[in-house]
Amino acid sequence: MAESAATAPSAGPTLLGNKATDMPVVLASGSRFRATLLRNAGVPFTVDVPGVDEASVRDSLKAENATTEDVATMLAELKAVAISRKHPEALVIGSDQMLDCGGVWFEKPVDRDHAHATLTALSGKSHRLVTAVVVARAGSRIWHAMDNVTMRMRPLSNDFIAQYLDTVGDDVFASVGAYQLEGLGAQLFTGVEGDYFTVLGLPLLPLLDFLRTHGVLAR
Amino acid sequence: MAESAATAPSAGPTLLGNKATDMPVVLASGSRFRATLLRNAGVPFTVDVPGVDEASVRDSLKAENATTEDVATMLAELKAVAISRKHPEALVIGSDQMLDCGGVWFEKPVDRDHAHATLTALSGKSHRLVTAVVVARAGSRIWHAMDNVTMRMRPLSNDFIAQYLDTVGDDVFASVGAYQLEGLGAQLFTGVEGDYFTVLGLPLLPLLDFLRTHGVLAR
Repeated sequence: MAESAATAPSAGPTLLGNKATDMPVVLASGSRFRATLLRNAGVPFTVDVPGVDEASVRDSLKAENATTEDVATMLAELKAVAISRKHPEALVIGSDQMLDCGGVWFEKPVDRDHAHATLTALSGKSHRLVTAVVVARAGSRIWHAMDNVTMRMRPLSNDFIAQYLDTVGDDVFASVGAYQLEGLGAQLFTGVEGDYFTVLGLPLLPLLDFLRTHGVLAR
Repeated sequence: MAESAATAPSAGPTLLGNKATDMPVVLASGSRFRATLLRNAGVPFTVDVPGVDEASVRDSLKAENATTEDVATMLAELKAVAISRKHPEALVIGSDQMLDCGGVWFEKPVDRDHAHATLTALSGKSHRLVTAVVVARAGSRIWHAMDNVTMRMRPLSNDFIAQYLDTVGDDVFASVGAYQLEGLGAQLFTGVEGDYFTVLGLPLLPLLDFLRTHGVLAR
């Protein structure tokens, strides 16, 4: 084992980051779910939200027949690289999540009617959440990972959707499918096939592995 | 759709429970993770912790060559039924989680040395978490579900385990594998195959479906 000659904790990376090298990590995302995931896992980071016009990039890539996976990865890279230029010494984490239901892509709802329409469209069907994460350094992508999960939504009545939107309030605008699986959104589904962290917007376990490899976290 | 003639929310079940019938739900478990899962999903319930001697039941069933699945289900039933006798009118939720690593069963660690030994034994291997949930009413089991997930733990050095135990503190005693996937425990794994709610100790989606069928939650 390489660890048999491990140095004292103070001289190397710990579970809560590397005090010795202080390798900065920046999360290029305004999502509080992603920030919570990273924080709970012990990753030290700061947040810098990129100003990428995601909808317009998505539309233009769609016109080029890009796949859902392509678009998620390209958007994650765009965000990571944009912020990396501002923090060239840091590891910058960019990510993106696409919701694909039978070839139709969905955006975060902008108002209650939009959220109602989203849930009506997804009701009784399976959809895919495709989540990409990219790490950039010095303005270039140095690592990426992708994962997707299948969400089986039960048939929802109009009344149920209205009641759901009344109950969850503004939380509905925080995610692309108008639900949080970790909250009342659990009532919308009969099954989830795939990784929970991917549902929440970040393939966490591969990312932690990358951060260990780069000395940010203890091995 | 049956919901086309839906009654006003105040007269039927809602996402936050059924105010009209006030069908009581009791969670027969002292686990704060299970309580949090149910609460976040909107289920109204009270907690009544059963006084079952789980270790002795597990040992005696092991001597009878019961499978991991059998034992989890029987323990969940034992807990649900015991509490159901005290609350015969309620739907009582009992559950149990078994950790099986190559045919060896693990218990919740009782002290730090035990937790260290558990993580040493699981290091570099895959183990299964087998989670059962039983609902009892009037002293009898009326429903059950079971699910299992495979957890792939990376090889952990002795130093890492020591550092992990220093960092997580008493949380290590709250779960059978000495980890919480939703916290620093994420650093222990390279992969999780299966349902996140099952990892946390409750197959939540089938249980919510049951509660909808029984008028506790809105359909």
